[in-house]
Amino acid sequence: MTSLADFSDEVRVEVGLVREHVAALHEQLIKWGLVVWTAGNVSQRLHSADLLVIKPSGVRYEQLTPESMVVTDLEGHVVDGSAAPSSDVFSHAYIYRHMPEVFGVVHTHSTFATAFAAVGRSIPCVLTMMGDEFGGPVPVGPFALIGSDQIGRGVVETLAEHPGCPAVLMRNHGPFTVGADAEAAVKAAAMTEEVARTVWAAEQIGTPVPLSDEDVASLNDRYQHVYGQH
Amino acid sequence: MTSLADFSDEVRVEVGLVREHVAALHEQLIKWGLVVWTAGNVSQRLHSADLLVIKPSGVRYEQLTPESMVVTDLEGHVVDGSAAPSSDVFSHAYIYRHMPEVFGVVHTHSTFATAFAAVGRSIPCVLTMMGDEFGGPVPVGPFALIGSDQIGRGVVETLAEHPGCPAVLMRNHGPFTVGADAEAAVKAAAMTEEVARTVWAAEQIGTPVPLSDEDVASLNDRYQHVYGQH
Amino acid sequence: MTSLADFSDEVRVEVGLVREHVAALHEQLIKWGLVVWTAGNVSQRLHSADLLVIKPSGVRYEQLTPESMVVTDLEGHVVDGSAAPSSDVFSHAYIYRHMPEVFGVVHTHSTFATAFAAVGRSIPCVLTMMGDEFGGPVPVGPFALIGSDQIGRGVVETLAEHPGCPAVLMRNHGPFTVGADAEAAVKAAAMTEEVARTVWAAEQIGTPVPLSDEDVASLNDRYQHVYGQH
Amino acid sequence: MTSLADFSDEVRVEVGLVREHVAALHEQLIKWGLVVWTAGNVSQRLHSADLLVIKPSGVRYEQLTPESMVVTDLEGHVVDGSAAPSSDVFSHAYIYRHMPEVFGVVHTHSTFATAFAAVGRSIPCVLTMMGDEFGGPVPVGPFALIGSDQIGRGVVETLAEHPGCPAVLMRNHGPFTVGADAEAAVKAAAMTEEVARTVWAAEQIGTPVPLSDEDVASLNDRYQHVYGQH
Repeated sequence: MTSLADFSDEVRVEVGLVREHVAALHEQLIKWGLVVWTAGNVSQRLHSADLLVIKPSGVRYEQLTPESMVVTDLEGHVVDGSAAPSSDVFSHAYIYRHMPEVFGVVHTHSTFATAFAAVGRSIPCVLTMMGDEFGGPVPVGPFALIGSDQIGRGVVETLAEHPGCPAVLMRNHGPFTVGADAEAAVKAAAMTEEVARTVWAAEQIGTPVPLSDEDVASLNDRYQHVYGQH
Repeated sequence: MTSLADFSDEVRVEVGLVREHVAALHEQLIKWGLVVWTAGNVSQRLHSADLLVIKPSGVRYEQLTPESMVVTDLEGHVVDGSAAPSSDVFSHAYIYRHMPEVFGVVHTHSTFATAFAAVGRSIPCVLTMMGDEFGGPVPVGPFALIGSDQIGRGVVETLAEHPGCPAVLMRNHGPFTVGADAEAAVKAAAMTEEVARTVWAAEQIGTPVPLSDEDVASLNDRYQHVYGQH
Repeated sequence: MTSLADFSDEVRVEVGLVREHVAALHEQLIKWGLVVWTAGNVSQRLHSADLLVIKPSGVRYEQLTPESMVVTDLEGHVVDGSAAPSSDVFSHAYIYRHMPEVFGVVHTHSTFATAFAAVGRSIPCVLTMMGDEFGGPVPVGPFALIGSDQIGRGVVETLAEHPGCPAVLMRNHGPFTVGADAEAAVKAAAMTEEVARTVWAAEQIGTPVPLSDEDVASLNDRYQHVYGQH
Repeated sequence: MTSLADFSDEVRVEVGLVREHVAALHEQLIKWGLVVWTAGNVSQRLHSADLLVIKPSGVRYEQLTPESMVVTDLEGHVVDGSAAPSSDVFSHAYIYRHMPEVFGVVHTHSTFATAFAAVGRSIPCVLTMMGDEFGGPVPVGPFALIGSDQIGRGVVETLAEHPGCPAVLMRNHGPFTVGADAEAAVKAAAMTEEVARTVWAAEQIGTPVPLSDEDVASLNDRYQHVYGQH
């Protein structure tokens, strides 16, 4: 079995930093109400080696430490860590192998995003916030069982049809999000739930008005290139 | 009257540990939004003697200490503690007497689970998370008055018809959950509310798609045997 | 003008204790999500004199201190305190004058209770928790403008028709609750919102089943006489 | 380029105080659940110079410090600060230029207010709290793209038609609120979301009863002139 001892100092340093970062980002899942108990996970791919750092399986968030984070290769095989990785690790690994620009993946069962997933509906693009972050509707992905890389395949195939969109609602399951790092994927998870909740609420009191494709393109372009600190 | 002095040192040590653990678990009821004011309770059965540790009646969560937890026998009679036990103690005791594999029981009035209970509906199994944790729908139990062991009987009879399911929604009342220890029962209570809220939300925007029995069986088997740390 | 100097030491001591208690109870309004910004208030009547202690008007909860609480007589005239009292003070005072068993009053605009008030509906008694705490439905009171004792009159007249019930939903306005002390009234406010939210949610997924009058009477009797620490 | 060095000591002192105040007020957006991730912003106009202080663009709330707040002139051009200002700065600046009584502006995407915005509906005035704070319905403003002062124009034009109302729901986008200082605008943002949520909830269980124009005028007059500390 490969171990961290087989890697360079540079890799071991990055592993240490990413463990801290990924452990801390799980607090954001709690802060924004995206998870209950242990039902969500964050991973980040390394830049210095074909490795990823992911949450251990079934551990309560209060008990997560940088040391408890598990390091695996991009097939999901454990390279370092005393705990078993999240049972979604094969899907995270699949996504990293097939989406080379992605260095962060998040999975939650956040309530309103999962409600859309349960009825097999995408979230229609009726908010400027959705044009900004998603560049269109948040799409639905196929049903897939947990434990293999099937879910990862469904995520990759669905996102391939929605270039630039960082989120997919896996049917009867919940959202997966991706990003240039784990923080971006956590942000996308928070925004997915927020737009799901808002559109859900809007549908109870009227008919949400869709944005035009032109406006969505304009919003998304500005958000990706002007918004934030450059 | 029996007192803790009639028990061995081993039992007194376990009582001390379980008091701390059960007191601390009440914080999880607050953390996950499962209770308001004093309206929920956690108990755990001992392994070293036929005793259980339960919340005192009508005490605010901020004021719960390990010492304030009440020890009773499996008939609900107080063995140690200066306060009266939760008025649900006879139902907790009934469950322990009739479900020997159960060492933790939780009762809440969490909002969405109780909403299903108020309309007398089980929660349909439309989420992978439900296949994982419940192995099917979350069933409804009978209406029963508080203060005797009637509620316990209703819980036991309902769960007997749903082997492997740790939760039941008592009509017009709220959820009871069981587990191999109090923490597992608290987790089941948190998951019950989360799936109730998600399915409730899904029903407002479409028709949730049920999982096939085969998929539910596969999810439940994996979750019970592979998920988590072994 | 009367001042605290006109009262005995005993009264001044009680004022000090009640100020601390009432200030602290406002944190419970926040904790249970019953208020936004400054939109809620708690008062408690003294036992040693015909005085009450109430929140100052329009002050943010973070800035509330025991010293900032205002003491008035039972007509709502300020006896001690550098700030203006809550503009609901005349209604609190009216309630104390006309309900001698009441020593605590709370007013909030909590979301779901106020939703029932906005449509002029009482909350039907479909939960054991409602039998326990309210002994029946939570009734609707009349519409009344703020700033005089009109609201207090509406509260007293409505509760007179619902003996034992500690809550009333003032039309287009929000809930008022009463109790044997301010803590009991805060508890009633928390329970009012919780049952409003639960019944509201139940109505979205089916038809809540009412409890029989006999069961409600049995629940209420047990809750008032057996529940809690005696 | 103008810099703070071009201004008097008095201005530099006010800038320091307003930076602290505006940074701290962003915590209130989190506290009252008005924003997710970075999706909201607060600004305050100075009294000693034609400058405003606003949140930097795309920075997480945990990382906001007084120093990170950006100072711009009333055209939105940066005068001090190492970060880029919120991309809404041109709209904030437009509002200050055209509403001289306004010294605070807040923008959020709070869930229920944004749901009304998504369906293009104003919030009907059915709560005494709305008479108090808004003096009538909360109006809907036009759709406008982000990044120019178009949104500011829409806010100013809509509020001109609703004198005394501090909030407008920009179509498909979210609420903007104004006030005599940033705190008043934050309060208006919190109240906008609360009344949106309450009216939304009321509409699910019946038909909210509108207040009469006379009652609204009476409530608003009292609230603006009697309520609070004077």
